[in-house]
Amino acid sequence: MKIDGKAFRSIWMDDDKVKIIDQTRLPHEVLIVELRTMEDAARAISNMLVRGAPLIGATAAYGLALAMRVDGSDNQLSHAAKVLGATRPTAINLRWALDRVTTHLMALPVPERVGAAFRLAADLCDEDVEINRRIGENGLAIIKNIAASKEGPVNILTHCNAGWIATVDWGTATSPIYQAHELGIDVHVWVDETRPRNQGAHLTAWELGSHGVPHTLIVDNAGGHLMQHGMVDVCITGTDRVTAHGDVCNKIGTYLKALAAHDNHVPFYVALPSPTIDWTVSNGLRDIPIEERSGDEVAFVQGLLDGKIEQVRITPKTTSCSNFAFDVTPSKYVTGLITERGICEASAKGLAGLFPDLASGT
Amino acid sequence: MKIDGKAFRSIWMDDDKVKIIDQTRLPHEVLIVELRTMEDAARAISNMLVRGAPLIGATAAYGLALAMRVDGSDNQLSHAAKVLGATRPTAINLRWALDRVTTHLMALPVPERVGAAFRLAADLCDEDVEINRRIGENGLAIIKNIAASKEGPVNILTHCNAGWIATVDWGTATSPIYQAHELGIDVHVWVDETRPRNQGAHLTAWELGSHGVPHTLIVDNAGGHLMQHGMVDVCITGTDRVTAHGDVCNKIGTYLKALAAHDNHVPFYVALPSPTIDWTVSNGLRDIPIEERSGDEVAFVQGLLDGKIEQVRITPKTTSCSNFAFDVTPSKYVTGLITERGICEASAKGLAGLFPDLASGT
Repeated sequence: MKIDGKAFRSIWMDDDKVKIIDQTRLPHEVLIVELRTMEDAARAISNMLVRGAPLIGATAAYGLALAMRVDGSDNQLSHAAKVLGATRPTAINLRWALDRVTTHLMALPVPERVGAAFRLAADLCDEDVEINRRIGENGLAIIKNIAASKEGPVNILTHCNAGWIATVDWGTATSPIYQAHELGIDVHVWVDETRPRNQGAHLTAWELGSHGVPHTLIVDNAGGHLMQHGMVDVCITGTDRVTAHGDVCNKIGTYLKALAAHDNHVPFYVALPSPTIDWTVSNGLRDIPIEERSGDEVAFVQGLLDGKIEQVRITPKTTSCSNFAFDVTPSKYVTGLITERGICEASAKGLAGLFPDLASGT
Repeated sequence: MKIDGKAFRSIWMDDDKVKIIDQTRLPHEVLIVELRTMEDAARAISNMLVRGAPLIGATAAYGLALAMRVDGSDNQLSHAAKVLGATRPTAINLRWALDRVTTHLMALPVPERVGAAFRLAADLCDEDVEINRRIGENGLAIIKNIAASKEGPVNILTHCNAGWIATVDWGTATSPIYQAHELGIDVHVWVDETRPRNQGAHLTAWELGSHGVPHTLIVDNAGGHLMQHGMVDVCITGTDRVTAHGDVCNKIGTYLKALAAHDNHVPFYVALPSPTIDWTVSNGLRDIPIEERSGDEVAFVQGLLDGKIEQVRITPKTTSCSNFAFDVTPSKYVTGLITERGICEASAKGLAGLFPDLASGT
């Protein structure tokens, strides 16, 4: 998508250099960083200069390629995969990308590995872009239908950042929005701030603004009121994991928005690439462990002060904070799942209908 | 309630001096401020050194008394009432307190007015304390019942600050909690941060901590997840206005918590003094206008940095923010209303049963 009129991906080659945007500086500064070494790539992932499952996977793939540039040996490859794999232990895409690249390279003669690694990393990126483009194409139908049925903008509420900077391009939840905007459909996005890490305020508001999509930032508390008063036509979020029965694990607070959508007859869609479906789990509430992160993410808020990025403490020194990072929205509150193959009901039947090749045995 | 072991009210006389706590400095500093003049009292209200309907009313009453100290004339009284009344135009308690004191004083000879004004201000404070004490006594039964039915602490979720520093003492939503704690019942409070103004993080966490009540700060997004997993036994919030049919207008986000409570069979109570009931309105969603405040409250977050209270901007410079301050929770999601006369169903029938003297004609 665009930053001030110029098209970008979230990771790209500039001649032989691997480049990313340092997302910890957003929205206050667009800092482009070169990843020179495998260690740079590992640090970019662990320090969250890059985040979002698809982008983490792509960065890890480029990390392996950078390692191969130094030394194409089996030892180097295993070492690099181990270092990169340890950066975010729970990221499924990371593991998947590392396994895919490693397996491919191990089968090749050493001198061919570096070239093959860069080609494969580029292929992974292109595949991600194509999957997200299709998600957008499929989700676009929902926005088109709403636009045809009302005057004024289509008001879309989203939570967290499932945007192009969480993927290689397009994003998941944002892909239908960008595509509608490209077609000249009048869209307006309500952006949930998404405490505690403020991905909405820091990232989604920034990327929509940079691309030129009309949007308004709201606190996480506001969505229910907006839906009660007809100010939201549809909710679209991303997800970290969907169960085989259609329960949706996503950023903490998603469930509250789904409840409000249900209570006010607002459709609630979740956009996802198919690798996000965990065919081994049926009951999300019972079976998905929820990561508890540091209470400091609640106690401290990052922002700009006198031109510098600072963190202020909002709590009394002695207050303890709890920080569950995700919640699970039961499938009954999800209107539909928008995937690269089409839209389906959030249910075992709906998912099996779209993915008969993957769903067997669940 | 107590601050580090010493009992306080939120406004008090120290010999002939009127004193308050500057709540804009909380939780980072307990700054006690003397109100020397009526103008001091007016500034304390308009700059939000004091907030919360009952405390605003009490401060205005003391403001009139301070004005009488200078000059007990009719002119001075009208002038003072006008200045104080303009500080927070929509605060119903403010108007009510000013009218009550003014009417009382106008009937007295000029030399008696200053003494009478201070006595009446003190009476208003004592009345508020007594009302809140009774709310606590009535709400205590709910907590006792839960404590009797389970092992471990009674987990109570609250939103915003309906605490002792929003009233003269006890608070509304917090009054049952303080009383349970005094009785040695094991209570633990989940404190919603309450964006955008962070009354939970700044005020509720501070007052519970200062009094010694166990509590944990959470982001507004977290309550749904906690309720799904049995970590909340009961929700208790305050309210700014309750309709004659039991709809509850309260800080933005209250409605989302009520939905989650309903979905997870967690009782959701609202604590209020009877003057909060608006007998002229039945349908809250349709008829209560919702204040829209400055988007800067969303864009900037206040906290402590290097020992100084600062505000950081969390959004891109060009992002516009929307800031609806309240929402309405339909009565069907409210388990009961805790008042100074007892607990009733959130309905016209329930309210009329407790307040036959006030409900007539609605």
